[in-house]
Amino acid sequence: MREASIARPEVPDVPKDRLKRYLNLHRDFAEGKYINLNPIQRGGILTEEARRVLLEFGDGYSTCDWCPPKEGRLDAIERPPIGQFMEDLAAFLGMDVARVVTRCREAKFIAFLALGRPGDYVVVDSLAHYSTYLAAEAAGLRVKEVPNSGYPEYRVDLEAYAAKIEEVREETGRPPALALLTHVDHLYGNLNDAAVVGKICRDYGVPFLLNAAYTAGVMPVDGRQLGADIIVSSGHKSWAASAPTGILAMTEEMAKRILARSKVVGEWSKRSFAVKELFLLGCTVMGAPLLTLMASFPFVVERVKRWSEEVEKARYLARELEKIEGTRQLGVKPKQHTLIHVESLGFYKVSKAHRRRGYFLYEELRERGIVGIQPGLTKHFKLNTYGLSFDKVKYVAESFQEIARKWGLSVG
Amino acid sequence: MREASIARPEVPDVPKDRLKRYLNLHRDFAEGKYINLNPIQRGGILTEEARRVLLEFGDGYSTCDWCPPKEGRLDAIERPPIGQFMEDLAAFLGMDVARVVTRCREAKFIAFLALGRPGDYVVVDSLAHYSTYLAAEAAGLRVKEVPNSGYPEYRVDLEAYAAKIEEVREETGRPPALALLTHVDHLYGNLNDAAVVGKICRDYGVPFLLNAAYTAGVMPVDGRQLGADIIVSSGHKSWAASAPTGILAMTEEMAKRILARSKVVGEWSKRSFAVKELFLLGCTVMGAPLLTLMASFPFVVERVKRWSEEVEKARYLARELEKIEGTRQLGVKPKQHTLIHVESLGFYKVSKAHRRRGYFLYEELRERGIVGIQPGLTKHFKLNTYGLSFDKVKYVAESFQEIARKWGLSVG
Repeated sequence: MREASIARPEVPDVPKDRLKRYLNLHRDFAEGKYINLNPIQRGGILTEEARRVLLEFGDGYSTCDWCPPKEGRLDAIERPPIGQFMEDLAAFLGMDVARVVTRCREAKFIAFLALGRPGDYVVVDSLAHYSTYLAAEAAGLRVKEVPNSGYPEYRVDLEAYAAKIEEVREETGRPPALALLTHVDHLYGNLNDAAVVGKICRDYGVPFLLNAAYTAGVMPVDGRQLGADIIVSSGHKSWAASAPTGILAMTEEMAKRILARSKVVGEWSKRSFAVKELFLLGCTVMGAPLLTLMASFPFVVERVKRWSEEVEKARYLARELEKIEGTRQLGVKPKQHTLIHVESLGFYKVSKAHRRRGYFLYEELRERGIVGIQPGLTKHFKLNTYGLSFDKVKYVAESFQEIARKWGLSVG
Repeated sequence: MREASIARPEVPDVPKDRLKRYLNLHRDFAEGKYINLNPIQRGGILTEEARRVLLEFGDGYSTCDWCPPKEGRLDAIERPPIGQFMEDLAAFLGMDVARVVTRCREAKFIAFLALGRPGDYVVVDSLAHYSTYLAAEAAGLRVKEVPNSGYPEYRVDLEAYAAKIEEVREETGRPPALALLTHVDHLYGNLNDAAVVGKICRDYGVPFLLNAAYTAGVMPVDGRQLGADIIVSSGHKSWAASAPTGILAMTEEMAKRILARSKVVGEWSKRSFAVKELFLLGCTVMGAPLLTLMASFPFVVERVKRWSEEVEKARYLARELEKIEGTRQLGVKPKQHTLIHVESLGFYKVSKAHRRRGYFLYEELRERGIVGIQPGLTKHFKLNTYGLSFDKVKYVAESFQEIARKWGLSVG
C-alpha cells in the first residue's frame, strides 16, 4: 500500500529582519539596576526561590507530570504540592477554598458569571479598578457605584453600601448579585475598613467580594474577620509571583456556586466532564507562574507580618515630598498603604517652562537611578515604596528634594 | 496632630512545617533528564532564548515598564515589541489581527461570548477537547456534535458540518453562532482537512473557528488558505512557551466583534474605559509567559518548515510499535501528526499477570530513561514524538520492543 504523502502546505513567512527583533529581548528596568517605584510592580518582584523554580518549571505544561488520570484537575495534583497549596492559601486568607486563576480580573469575572444573572446589579466602590467594571460588563451585569468624597481625600462612603443595596432592590425588585469593595484602590492607595461592608452585606444577605489585589500578599488579610464571602487577589501584583496569576478564595457556601461542575453532555458522543469546574474552564495556570506563587508563599506568609514597617516608610516619604513647594499627598492621611498619589503643582510649574516639558522629572530621576514614575507626568503621579529599604526610600526623598531645589522650588 | 495608628491585624498563620513543602520545589521530568513522551508537553519545551527571557521578565508586571499612558493596553506596548509581535503573529497564521490571551480555552470562550447569544448553538467535531464543551457551556451556548467514524479510525465526518448547520437552522430558526473544528484532536492525533469545513461555513455564512492547539506552532497553518475566520492555539502546547498562553487570531471582520471595546459608564463617577477590549477584560498575559512566546517565535517560524520530518519519525515509531504482538495504532493511518494513540492488547495481557499490574510498563520505561506514558495504562496510551531526534525515537521503539520480549510478547 502506498503511504499517503505528508502534507507540506505553504506557510505564510515572516521576513527575517522582522524576526530579529525577538532575539536578545531584554528588560530595561530589571530589579537591581534601578530603584523602581512603579506602583503596580513592587509587590510582584520574585523571591530567589521563585526565580529558581521559574526555570525548573519553565516548559509548557510543567505542572502536569503527575496529573491524576481520574480527577484530571490542577487542584488534584499533589506533586508538586498544588492541591496542598490551595488549602494553605485558603487558610492564610481566612477562607475555606482557594483556586489559582489567570488574573485577579478573571477571579472577579468568574464570581460575577457564577452568582449573577444578566441584568443583575453588582454594587462597587467608585474607585474600583477598570477591570471590575469590565468583568461586570462582560458578565452582563450592571454596576451601581458607591460614592467617594472626592478631592483631596477620595474617601469611599462605606456606610452607603446599605443605601445602594436598597436602591437596587427598589429598582429591580431583588438584591444585587453581589457587592464588591476594593480593599485598597489603585488610584489613591486608600485602605478601606472592609469589615464595615462585610457587616452590611451580611445584614442584607448579599455576597461580599473583597478585591484584595493591593493588600493580600503584602499585608495581613483575614477574610473571616472582615466578613468576606469571596477574596480575590493578584499574584503578580502582591504575592511575589510572575504574571499571570490570580487568586480566588471563598467560603464553602460560595464554592458550591462558583466552582460548580460542568453539566454539558455531548448529544451524539454522550461525552461529559463532570469533574471539571465550569467557570474556571477546567485547569487554569498550568505552569511556571503558579510555581513562583507557591515558591514565594513561605516568604509572603512572613512578610505580611512586617507590614507596619512598610507603612512607616511610605509615611516618611509622603512627609518628605510634602516639604516640596506645591506638593501634596492625595488620598486619606496619614498613609495606611505604600501606594502614594502625589499632586505636585510645583513640579508642574517647572515643567511648563522646561524644554523637556513634563519629561524633565522622569529624566532627572532616571539620572539618579530611580524609575517607575510615568514619563511625562508631573502634576499627578503615583509611586509605591513597598519592599524598599529605608535607606533607599531616604535616597528617593532626597533625590526629589534635590531636583526641586535645582529647578527653583523651595523645600521647607 | 496625633497620627492614626497603623493597623496590625492578626493574620491567619500557616504552620512552618506545612510551609516547608514549598521550599526546594523541583520537577522530576525536567527536559534533558529523561526522554519525555507526554502527549501535551513536546511542543511546549522552551528554546534557550525563551529560558533566558523567562528570568529577565520573571517579575510580576514585567511587560508594563513602557505602557503608553493613553492607550493603556498590552498590544499597544512597543518596548518590548509586544504590539509588533501581535502583528507578526497574525501574519504568520494568515490572519489579520492577533491577541495573546491566557489559554487556548479562554480564546474559544471569548469568541463564544462575543459571537453567541445564550441558547445559540455552536457546531463542533465530536473529538473536541473538553475545554471546547466547557467554553460553550460557560458562555450559555448549546453544542451540536459532528459525528466521527468510531473505532479504529475515529475519522470526523467533515462533510456533515453542512447537515449539522442545517439541523440547527431547522431547530432554532437561525444558524449556529459559529462552527468549530479541532484541527488535530488530542485523543487520536487525527489531522482534519480544515479547508473542507472552511468552505461549508463560508457557503452557510457561519463563522469558522479552527482550534489549532496541536497544529499551529509545530506545523504550517495558513488560516486564509483554510478559510478560517478565527484561529485559536496554545502557546504552552505548541509554541515553545511557558503556560499559560493562548493565541486568538482572526479576520478584520471578526475583530470588530470579538475585540469590541468596553461601553460601561459609571453611573455616579462617569468613569469609562473605551480603549479596553471588553471580552479580554483588558490586559491578559502581562509577564514572563508572553515573553517566552515572543522569544521562541523566530524558532517556531523555522521549525514548522521541518514538519514533514517530524511526521516521518512518528510514522516510524507507529510501525515499530505495531510489530509488537497485539499492538495497533488507533486513528487514521498513516500518521499525519506526532501524537499517537496506541492500543496494546499485548501489554494489557502482561499487566493482568504482573505483580505491578498496569504500572509495569511505566516502570520498565522509566528504568530505560523514558517517561510521559500515563502510569498504570497499558491497553490504551498516548505519546508524542515531536522534537525528538531520530536516534531517540529509535531508542524508544527498541525499548518498547525489548520490554515486550522480556514479558513474552512476540515482536515480528
